[in-house]
Amino acid sequence: MDIDHLVEEIVKELTNKHAMKNSNDKYLVPIGVSGRHCHLTKSDFEKLFGSEASLTKKADLSQPGQFAANETVTIAGPKGSIQNVRILGPLRRKTQVEISLTDARKLGVTPPIRESGELMDSSPVTIIGPKGSIYLKEGLIIAQAHIHMNPEDAVRFNVKDGEFVRVKIINESRPISFEKVKVRVSPNFVLEMHIDTDEANAADVKPGTFGKLFKLGGPI
Amino acid sequence: MDIDHLVEEIVKELTNKHAMKNSNDKYLVPIGVSGRHCHLTKSDFEKLFGSEASLTKKADLSQPGQFAANETVTIAGPKGSIQNVRILGPLRRKTQVEISLTDARKLGVTPPIRESGELMDSSPVTIIGPKGSIYLKEGLIIAQAHIHMNPEDAVRFNVKDGEFVRVKIINESRPISFEKVKVRVSPNFVLEMHIDTDEANAADVKPGTFGKLFKLGGPI
Repeated sequence: MDIDHLVEEIVKELTNKHAMKNSNDKYLVPIGVSGRHCHLTKSDFEKLFGSEASLTKKADLSQPGQFAANETVTIAGPKGSIQNVRILGPLRRKTQVEISLTDARKLGVTPPIRESGELMDSSPVTIIGPKGSIYLKEGLIIAQAHIHMNPEDAVRFNVKDGEFVRVKIINESRPISFEKVKVRVSPNFVLEMHIDTDEANAADVKPGTFGKLFKLGGPI
Repeated sequence: MDIDHLVEEIVKELTNKHAMKNSNDKYLVPIGVSGRHCHLTKSDFEKLFGSEASLTKKADLSQPGQFAANETVTIAGPKGSIQNVRILGPLRRKTQVEISLTDARKLGVTPPIRESGELMDSSPVTIIGPKGSIYLKEGLIIAQAHIHMNPEDAVRFNVKDGEFVRVKIINESRPISFEKVKVRVSPNFVLEMHIDTDEANAADVKPGTFGKLFKLGGPI
């Protein structure tokens, strides 16, 4: 980790602490933006990169064990293609591509808004690597906004795994509330809400942005 | 689609209809999506299209007198360019280009979120037409979400020109609330909320989507 990155991390941490101390702020959730990316099975990875290749780590992600790989692919649909789509590791049991609605228009497809892994009747997509190409009949989705949290967080927020909550983004420029955010609880998770680039742009989310969690069923 | 899913869909549909019928629908606002576009002065139009050219109507817009022109331009910044940017007519007293944050990243600029016409210290942009090119030191903005309404609407909503309100988008797939929406009142306006393509994608806005207006300062 270089010095700039370290400083950035420290600033984030301090901003975080500050935000948590002020206002009401046991209900604050850090916001992470997921760019378009893909998860591959071992078999699909080998078709795209060759059987000798292996997935190599570029950077750790916020959730333990997850990483951005150095390797990227091109994805394509009936109307266009998008290069440099990052592979996230480790390899999985199902191949899945997550894009934004903006990307979907470019590719000429209409993927459903889904949670990770829920691929039934999702959109088809072609994935192109340096050593081959694969066509998936389904596997392309737009990710449902969600919050990763551990069981202690869930107790603090008074929410359960699978519950939908409202999260109001805290900023002055473009405050919006996400009214349907899925809670995902696991001992392995670190507290973070994940939204895609369209959602992040609509809320002008920058590094260090927080949201405030509300239970659904309130007055508005 | 299995029976549970079908029942769920039916319930959703009925809930929706019920919501629209009941009292609160006097607070509903139709949502219009503004793609990237530009407004030109007569002088700038002539620099781009030649002094013999005139702006021609392709389609009327929702606000009386406003139209999408057949003519388009290319806009460019330090990192890239975007073709086929629609000119909206009629010609104005100031040239202004409105794009999304997604577009801004592509051009390599960081325009402020502004109301139409508020161009001081906005971003520079190059506009290229078939007969020439112009460089604006400022004029590029990301549009502040706003609602056009006439004075009768304003009375009904109990809001004033310039007031900020909250608008909750009504849909099942990606409901979000815009927490900072500017009200603009004029006898010439037709009721419609305008958001950009990032905001529309974040809320999965389709033709016929409505939002519900709330006064700010409520409990959440």
